[in-house]
Parts: sequence; C-alpha cells; structure tokens
Amino acid sequence: MTDSGRPPVTVIGLGDMGRALAGAFLDRGHPTAVWNRTASRADALAARGATVAATPAEAIAASPLTVVCLLDDGAVRKVLEPAAATLRGRTLVNLTNGTPGQARETAAWAAGQGAEYVDGGIMAVPPMIGGPGALVLYSGSPAAFTGHEATLGALGAARHLGTDPGLAALYDVALLSAMYGMFGGFFQAVALTRSEKVPAAEFTPMVAAWLGAMMESLPALAEAVDSGDHSATGSNLRMQAAAYVNLLDAAREQGVGTELMEPMRALLDRAVAAGHGDGDLSSLVDLLRTAPANGPAPRR
Amino acid sequence: MTDSGRPPVTVIGLGDMGRALAGAFLDRGHPTAVWNRTASRADALAARGATVAATPAEAIAASPLTVVCLLDDGAVRKVLEPAAATLRGRTLVNLTNGTPGQARETAAWAAGQGAEYVDGGIMAVPPMIGGPGALVLYSGSPAAFTGHEATLGALGAARHLGTDPGLAALYDVALLSAMYGMFGGFFQAVALTRSEKVPAAEFTPMVAAWLGAMMESLPALAEAVDSGDHSATGSNLRMQAAAYVNLLDAAREQGVGTELMEPMRALLDRAVAAGHGDGDLSSLVDLLRTAPANGPAPRR
Repeated sequence: MTDSGRPPVTVIGLGDMGRALAGAFLDRGHPTAVWNRTASRADALAARGATVAATPAEAIAASPLTVVCLLDDGAVRKVLEPAAATLRGRTLVNLTNGTPGQARETAAWAAGQGAEYVDGGIMAVPPMIGGPGALVLYSGSPAAFTGHEATLGALGAARHLGTDPGLAALYDVALLSAMYGMFGGFFQAVALTRSEKVPAAEFTPMVAAWLGAMMESLPALAEAVDSGDHSATGSNLRMQAAAYVNLLDAAREQGVGTELMEPMRALLDRAVAAGHGDGDLSSLVDLLRTAPANGPAPRR
Repeated sequence: MTDSGRPPVTVIGLGDMGRALAGAFLDRGHPTAVWNRTASRADALAARGATVAATPAEAIAASPLTVVCLLDDGAVRKVLEPAAATLRGRTLVNLTNGTPGQARETAAWAAGQGAEYVDGGIMAVPPMIGGPGALVLYSGSPAAFTGHEATLGALGAARHLGTDPGLAALYDVALLSAMYGMFGGFFQAVALTRSEKVPAAEFTPMVAAWLGAMMESLPALAEAVDSGDHSATGSNLRMQAAAYVNLLDAAREQGVGTELMEPMRALLDRAVAAGHGDGDLSSLVDLLRTAPANGPAPRR
C-alpha cells in the first residue's frame, strides 16, 4: 500500500476490465480495495498492494467511492443488493455494460439506498485503461462526478454528459454501433479485394484515406438530420439505391457474402418508396425509428 | 472552342456525372466532343464550346480518347456496338458503374475491336469532379493510361491499379461498401442519441473522433487477415458477441430499429460457433467468403 495521500477507491468485479481498472488506481497510488466472486482473480492485484475484501459490503465500506464493473446488469443487482446498507452516503460508479434504461433503474435503486450514483461507459479495451487513448463517459449526479473526478481520471479521460444517468450508456451504445458499422464495411471491402488476392495491408491505407474523406460529410448529414431538410447535395437517394445494387452484384460475382450489405439496400429501397428518392442519404435516420422519440426526459 | 493545344477528348453519356466530366475537360481547354441519347442534355456544354455529335460513332471519331459514363453495363454495349468500327486504334475509358466481371468482358470486347481499354471507378460525386477531392481509379492497358494520363488528370487525381481491367471496379465497389458500412453505423448511432433528443450536430464531433480513433486499428486487423493469425489483442470475439446483444437491447428500448445491426450479430455468433471465440474480430473476413478465392488471375 502506498502512502500517496490519494483517496481510497473500491473496485467490484475483476474480469479483464475490472482488473485493468483496479490496476490503474494502484498505478496512481490510490489505496484500492477489491472484491470478486472468484477470489483468485484478485491475486495479482493483492501482490501489487490491493486489499482483498471478503464480501461486497466489506469492499464498499473501505472507500467513499465504489466502481462496479460486472458482467451485466443482473450481476450488478445480485452483488449490490446484499450490501445495500453500506452504500448509504457513498458514491457508486457503475461501469458495467448496459442499456440507458438499466442505468436509470440502477440509479433509482441506488437513490433509494441513499447512495450517489454515476453511470459510465468505457470507450476502450482493457489494455488501454490508464493510458492516453482511454475515454470514459459518465452521467448522473454531477456533484458525485465532480467530487471523484480526480480519482476517476486514473482510468482515462473522463467526460460527464449530463445528469440523466442513462446518457453514458446511450452514448456508449451509439459509439459502439457506429464502430461495428465501420468495421463491417471494412470487412466487406477487404473480403472483396482479397477475392482478387490483393493483400489487406496493401488495400487498407486506401480505404482508411477514403473513409477519412467520407467522414468529412458527417457534419452536413447531422445538420440535415437536425433540420429535417434532406435536400440532396451530391447523388440523391434514388441514384444511390440504383447504384447500390452493383455492390451486391459485385460481391456475389466475387464469392463474397452480401449479408452485411442487404439491410442498407432494404433501407434505401424503403426510403425511395416513402418518397425520399430526390433527397439525401440523411433521411435514412428517420426510417430507423420504430417508435416515437421518448418524452421530455431530462437530459441535462 | 479554345485553342489550348490540349488533345481532344470525347465524352459519351451526359447524366449528372457525364456532364461533370465533360465540363472538367472544357475547363482545362480540351476540345470536347459529346454525345447523349437525349441530345438536349448537351445544350449547356455546347454553349461552353463542346461539339455535339449526332451519333456515338461521330463522337468517337472526333478524338483519340473516348470516355464513357452511362447508366450501366447494358447501356455501354448498346451504345458502343453500332460504333465498334470507329474504336479501332483509339482508347476507350469506361467510367460506367459496374462489376469487375463486366469490366473484363467489356475489355475483351474492346480488344476484339482493336481498341485500347481502360476501366475506371470515380470516387467522387459530380460536384467534386475537377476539384482537389476527386479521385478516379483506373485499371487495364498501362500504355493507354499513361498516354492519356495528362488528359484524365482534368477529372481529378488519377491512380492506375494494374493491368487487370477488373481492378478499378473491384476497388470502387470495395470502397463504396466500406463507406455504406460507416454511414450505416453513423445513422444507427444518431438514431439512438436522437431518441433522447440529443441533437445530431452535438453528437457528431464525438462519433467522428471515436471513428477516427477506431480507424487506427484497421492496419492491425489487415495484418491479421493477411497472416491468418487472429490472436485477440483486446476483447476477444466471444466477449464482443456477448456485449453486442446490449447494442440490440438498447436500440429496441429506445425505439430504434435493429435491422442494420442484426447481420453483424449473426456473423459474430457464427464466428464463435466456428471456434473463433478466443480470437480477434479480424477472423470475420474469412466468414464472408461464400466461394473459394478466384484463381491466379493476373492482377498487375
């Protein structure tokens, strides 16, 4: 245990990510208490000075701030409920993957226990934690966030999105959805070029430059989405829908699956059928809604 | 008509893109002959000095280089076949959208007419043609490309990919597939954040920065694809497949469609079922193949 003067912190859940979080706190000299259902996961952290608690309640009692990173929302409740009394007057930061709705439910539950609650989404893989590339999004109690911002800074850049505890999960899910879209497109592109034995490493700089150039159109697309003015500036939706068929034909011809490409074709066709053919691609966003936008839930 | 000393060029097909191409040649001072089935499409170009030909053969006869940009491959044959005799000893640059297979067939046909053939893919929308952001990919006869490179430079940056005439279409289709993947992910992300009334313009800088950061992993993914070594460096495929469910749950909860997201989930699940769960996302590329890679077709 170092005597750094830094505030103590507790980490509950020691999967790959939880261990990375606890390790980052230890690196910064925070007295760190840890708990995990399978206690052996704590061995390496204990060797570095972490205190291994026997129960979640004992772990929570060790610090004003408890960071939870478990498998899923069900595990969070299961682990925290028996320790609920200990949470009173403390801050709970929940970095477990979940939906905005789950975050709000856990926030309400924590409030019922007299705890301050902050939800978070980790935009990094475990090896990045504590490094310059790690970003952690937070939402919920601004006072609790501000009070522990310096400690949480050990994990990576910390950004508070607003008081609605669901916002961090919302942004997390949105950013990951965007990432998988980009990766899916990249994989399709590489599968196509590899079908003619072009090495992926040779093609990748070109696709990266191209995607970088196409990213410059995102602000204009966003503006169109916000204003509802989807006037086409380049190729209109009808032309894009017609040309898109060529992407599917070429994939089939090259022996590459079209499964990642089909839904966008269907969406383009739906947009044309709905009368958006003269407009821009940005009108597709509205077609993705299956229900009216949520009511006037506070987001700040 | 200017007297610039620049070589004459012919443009066949005056849709939005064809008109942009002819306009860019005129801007650079090339004597430009044009033909379009609906002749009135040539009016504005004629006013700027273009020569309007009465038939495709007359247009082709006007220049050593003919650039064709028609609706699709069927239109190319329909327009050129009656003019085939005129192509002898000239260069045909086909910028019509098509598949690699179509490009190779048209190349073989053109060779049969005694014409030099270059296929091309335009990586730009019409307003970009002639500007600094326009890229045109070419493949096919290197001699014909080199001989007309200066003229083709009027359209945008020109890059010759190899002698196989199918390569330009292959890269074109691959780059567009990657772009639609990224746009689809962006639209999903914006639909999610808008479901909580976050303006798209407010969210977009964050998603753009995030995608830019994630693009840094493309070279490592490409290397894994080329080497076949898909050892996980971050979260392995099994963990990603498990966490992906959260993206679908959140979308449903927020009233956002999951149609753009489902195929990636199916692919992740297939990868885990196929025993790639301990590996990296890069192994998904191999799962997109539906047929063995093409034989040792020359690509340079």
